[in-house]
Amino acid sequence: MSNQQVSIQFPDGKQAMFAKGVSLTKIAKAISPGLAKKAVVGSVNGTTYDLTRPILTDAQIAIHDADSAKGLEVIRHSTAHLLAQAVKRLYPDAHFGVGPVIENGFYYDIEMAHTLVPEDLLLIEREMRKIVAEDLAIYRKEVSREAATKLFAHDPLKQELLEAIPEDEMVTIYEQGDFYDLCRGPHVPSTRKLQHFKLMNISGAYWRGDSNNQMLQRIYGVAFASMKEMEEHFEFLEEAEKRNHRKLGKELELFMFSEEAPGMPFYLANGQIIRNELESFLRNLQTTYDYKEVRTPLMMNQRLWEQSGHWHHYKENMYFTQVDEQKFALKPMNCPGHMLIYKNDLHSYRDLPIRMAEFGQVHRHEFSGALNGLLRVRTFCQDDAHIFVTPKQIEDEITLALKIIDHVYKVFGFEYEIELSTRPEDYMGDLSLWNEAERALENVLSNLGYLFKINEGDGAFYGPKIDIHIKDAIKRSHQCATVQLDFQLPEKFDLTYINEENEKVRPVVIHRAVFGSIDRFLGILIEHFGGAFPLWLAPKQVEVIGVSEVHKQYAEEVYLHLQKAGIRASIDGRNEKLGRKIRDAQLKKTPYQLIIGDQEIQDQTVTVRGYRKEHQQTISLEAFKRELLQEIAEKRLPEPI
Amino acid sequence: MSNQQVSIQFPDGKQAMFAKGVSLTKIAKAISPGLAKKAVVGSVNGTTYDLTRPILTDAQIAIHDADSAKGLEVIRHSTAHLLAQAVKRLYPDAHFGVGPVIENGFYYDIEMAHTLVPEDLLLIEREMRKIVAEDLAIYRKEVSREAATKLFAHDPLKQELLEAIPEDEMVTIYEQGDFYDLCRGPHVPSTRKLQHFKLMNISGAYWRGDSNNQMLQRIYGVAFASMKEMEEHFEFLEEAEKRNHRKLGKELELFMFSEEAPGMPFYLANGQIIRNELESFLRNLQTTYDYKEVRTPLMMNQRLWEQSGHWHHYKENMYFTQVDEQKFALKPMNCPGHMLIYKNDLHSYRDLPIRMAEFGQVHRHEFSGALNGLLRVRTFCQDDAHIFVTPKQIEDEITLALKIIDHVYKVFGFEYEIELSTRPEDYMGDLSLWNEAERALENVLSNLGYLFKINEGDGAFYGPKIDIHIKDAIKRSHQCATVQLDFQLPEKFDLTYINEENEKVRPVVIHRAVFGSIDRFLGILIEHFGGAFPLWLAPKQVEVIGVSEVHKQYAEEVYLHLQKAGIRASIDGRNEKLGRKIRDAQLKKTPYQLIIGDQEIQDQTVTVRGYRKEHQQTISLEAFKRELLQEIAEKRLPEPI
Repeated sequence: MSNQQVSIQFPDGKQAMFAKGVSLTKIAKAISPGLAKKAVVGSVNGTTYDLTRPILTDAQIAIHDADSAKGLEVIRHSTAHLLAQAVKRLYPDAHFGVGPVIENGFYYDIEMAHTLVPEDLLLIEREMRKIVAEDLAIYRKEVSREAATKLFAHDPLKQELLEAIPEDEMVTIYEQGDFYDLCRGPHVPSTRKLQHFKLMNISGAYWRGDSNNQMLQRIYGVAFASMKEMEEHFEFLEEAEKRNHRKLGKELELFMFSEEAPGMPFYLANGQIIRNELESFLRNLQTTYDYKEVRTPLMMNQRLWEQSGHWHHYKENMYFTQVDEQKFALKPMNCPGHMLIYKNDLHSYRDLPIRMAEFGQVHRHEFSGALNGLLRVRTFCQDDAHIFVTPKQIEDEITLALKIIDHVYKVFGFEYEIELSTRPEDYMGDLSLWNEAERALENVLSNLGYLFKINEGDGAFYGPKIDIHIKDAIKRSHQCATVQLDFQLPEKFDLTYINEENEKVRPVVIHRAVFGSIDRFLGILIEHFGGAFPLWLAPKQVEVIGVSEVHKQYAEEVYLHLQKAGIRASIDGRNEKLGRKIRDAQLKKTPYQLIIGDQEIQDQTVTVRGYRKEHQQTISLEAFKRELLQEIAEKRLPEPI
Repeated sequence: MSNQQVSIQFPDGKQAMFAKGVSLTKIAKAISPGLAKKAVVGSVNGTTYDLTRPILTDAQIAIHDADSAKGLEVIRHSTAHLLAQAVKRLYPDAHFGVGPVIENGFYYDIEMAHTLVPEDLLLIEREMRKIVAEDLAIYRKEVSREAATKLFAHDPLKQELLEAIPEDEMVTIYEQGDFYDLCRGPHVPSTRKLQHFKLMNISGAYWRGDSNNQMLQRIYGVAFASMKEMEEHFEFLEEAEKRNHRKLGKELELFMFSEEAPGMPFYLANGQIIRNELESFLRNLQTTYDYKEVRTPLMMNQRLWEQSGHWHHYKENMYFTQVDEQKFALKPMNCPGHMLIYKNDLHSYRDLPIRMAEFGQVHRHEFSGALNGLLRVRTFCQDDAHIFVTPKQIEDEITLALKIIDHVYKVFGFEYEIELSTRPEDYMGDLSLWNEAERALENVLSNLGYLFKINEGDGAFYGPKIDIHIKDAIKRSHQCATVQLDFQLPEKFDLTYINEENEKVRPVVIHRAVFGSIDRFLGILIEHFGGAFPLWLAPKQVEVIGVSEVHKQYAEEVYLHLQKAGIRASIDGRNEKLGRKIRDAQLKKTPYQLIIGDQEIQDQTVTVRGYRKEHQQTISLEAFKRELLQEIAEKRLPEPI
């Protein structure tokens, strides 16, 4: 083998010889012109590589197109550079902070005299397209620190970034036409490769995320492998915006927020109906599974939180208050309260398992910037439970917990995925108990026929756990339910029971939540159902609409009849046209409208129209009521529209 | 009329002449020896007077026996002196603080070297009875300040009390045998008059109630007009002790307290069942009355509490927490949150009344000494409601509020009394609105046929109010429900609605609570029912008891059948004798025990035994279930035992 040649091994294991210094582009071309055209980046011996970067040693290589995860990431990163170049052309005083890839796209932070307004994005985007058309080659250059320092002499932001590069790391510059940037790369070989992007919006961002630093201007953009994917993304955004729970929360009068209590939801009557339904649904289900509901104080001694470890690990997110000489904290979790209840009594193995549940309101501080409607709040109600078990009962109890979770999620039509997280390096407790517990969890999941992902070493230090991720109607994933084993809490609180051999031993604690946070779950439900709730959850189930004034009396009778049966009905008694009343009920996403006219009075019937249905049906009031009650009892899901 | 005589006028208006300096005793004897014997104190021109004190001017007089309120008060006060005299005889170094009359008796604070133990009370009581037998006359003496100072020269406590007597007030000493005390009086004429008393217990008490001062020893005693009344009192105490909610709360596993959260109840499974039943009972009732339930945050901005006036009037009892630069308070009341919800929307007169309800957890600081089980806590759940009305709707809405209250109290078998409190001197707002509102409240109460007491000038500064006092099974009175008009909150929060004339005007707010505090109400219910709750509230409704092992299977079937019907049943599966199982179920006050033996299995029946019933009845399982469900649905009260 000549030392002017390198041996290139392809992903399928085949090998070929190329001149030393060959680039991935050349190799791709050698394979097929089509591949070369599609290629955006590659990898050489496991490192992502610019297509044009010379290969100097024998290597295993791969070539990635835009459809691959790596390819798409590089496209997004290169589009950020493209943005910067366009900005620099339009605003020559611009300096740049960081420009990373984020979900669906990228952003770049900019310092310049001009304050950007939304209209500027169109100009910048036009300039970007111009640069794409120029088909500028993108070069990687390795430079010395001195050269780089000189190059960015008038750019204090890049100077700072340069200083942050570790001593032993190569400094690289990427250049495209009149623009260069300090960057690790890799990038696409030419601006021509960047086709499917759009600038989205502008915001402010502190330099390096520190509010003591100057404020930069940030431009967000998206970039995709194809026009089709970009269109799908915008359709998704449109759909998500239609379903936005903050918007629907306002329109359907479900909840509100006030600056007097930032991040703390106020439930309006409609939202509170849903909350109550959710709570009582789970309460009843838990009763059949022999859970015991308790209620513990919202405020407890700081000493207790020190004992539980929360103070040490979590105090930044806790609210404190002083009473006389004692410091109290609002509970961020319910566990310590439940431990105190367990300790209030002596226990024998015969008493276990004890399944202790609480709808517990917790308070956890979040930065105001992190708040997001019901999805990220400072106070929420956990459907929390702690199950105290003997080690032998772990398997059965986890099975039951998963059965409840499955039952609940099916009711809402949520598909879900399961992840099992196992012993981390900093685990505490007895190794054999860990092994036994992990085996138990795997057994349970296999026996229930679940496919699950194992996150090795991702468990909590106090025990392995099962996390459940639900998928909503537009395929977004949310982690809600969790089932966690805890070997440490029983130690910390010195919990015991008397076993069959009359010895005092430690129980194991299982933490379990189904909704997780009722508040967040409600937020997810609003978006999942787009505000058109299943009948059992709908705040108003039926709107009774008289065609005119003369039908008012029968409408009232119908309303009272339904109300007496526990159906949430109301009468639209406004002096409006029938069409308007129907339209308004549809806007409020009321599941059923009953139209009452002459014929209905004569036949003692009602004409029923469902939400977003064109079809109307005339049936007897009694039959309608029966069907409704049946639909409520079954917690039937709305038909897809 | 000779100036050596005085004219004495009796309560019936009759008059007679007596020698100047005559005493009430002499006058009583002149009327009848019986009256003189029963007399304990009198009054002269409206001032209570010792029976032996000379009357020097013409006077209207009255003579009180032990059965009168004034007579009984004097007996109790004189018994406190009797106690002090006995203590001084037994412990000559004793000095005395104050010895006032309290409900049912008296106490006296003592400073001395000997530390009292409960057994000492018997010795002291024996000495007291000796002094009674000595029939010592009790004398009133007016003395100069100098003489008094000299008399109590070696008694720093009495010195301090002496200094506290206003300059223009006469200093008086009461003397009986070897004992004298600084005292305003009056007293009975002789120790003989003190017959029906008992020393109860010892506690510590800071001199003048100030924890910076020395600790004195306090002896509590009771005293009555007759042996019968004293016996009734002890029977009442015994009954109250049997019903003590803290004791029953422990025995029936309803709730617990922890030093980690003083004054904040932890509800155990049994207590939480009752809480949930109470809450859902009122929730359903409120729904039929068209209340809208909401839920507001537990923590809100200090600024809001300043606006509402709570900060100014109530901050000593509020818990604060700091978030970033802002101070937040845990809500002591729900009103401001509801005002924010009202303000979240525009309102027309057509929207009113708005009945906004919340089961709102509030926090109010209380000194640890004031805490008393569930009856006095630091956090509780209010069944709060605010009704926003036009002035014309006040009458109708108050009527509806009283109807709910009446409905709820009847369900628990509570009789109640109503008090109407009217405009105080420091009232705020429009006088004509006050007049109109008071008239409206009186009208409502009269129209509903209530007898009610008017507390003139006792209303809140923001509006008149109706308080409802319930009487529990042992005739104790508790104020729970309240209906208050508020003209000020709408001003403070600038609440408006558009009236028929298209003008922006203020609504009136009605504050309304039925239970008041669910926690305190539960405490009252525990004592009212002595822990033997009506079936619908009983945490466990049925205990299924198999006669022996062979009956286990049918017992299990019966249990499952009941459980499926939503009846809270359990099986006593212990390896114990039948008698023991029945006794234990009775101890837990379980309303029904079902006994399952051979005959029951053969006939598919159950043998039913009620709580504290000797009688057993064998009926079909189906019939039993039907009856139970009926009893639950009717919320039937337990039969008196």
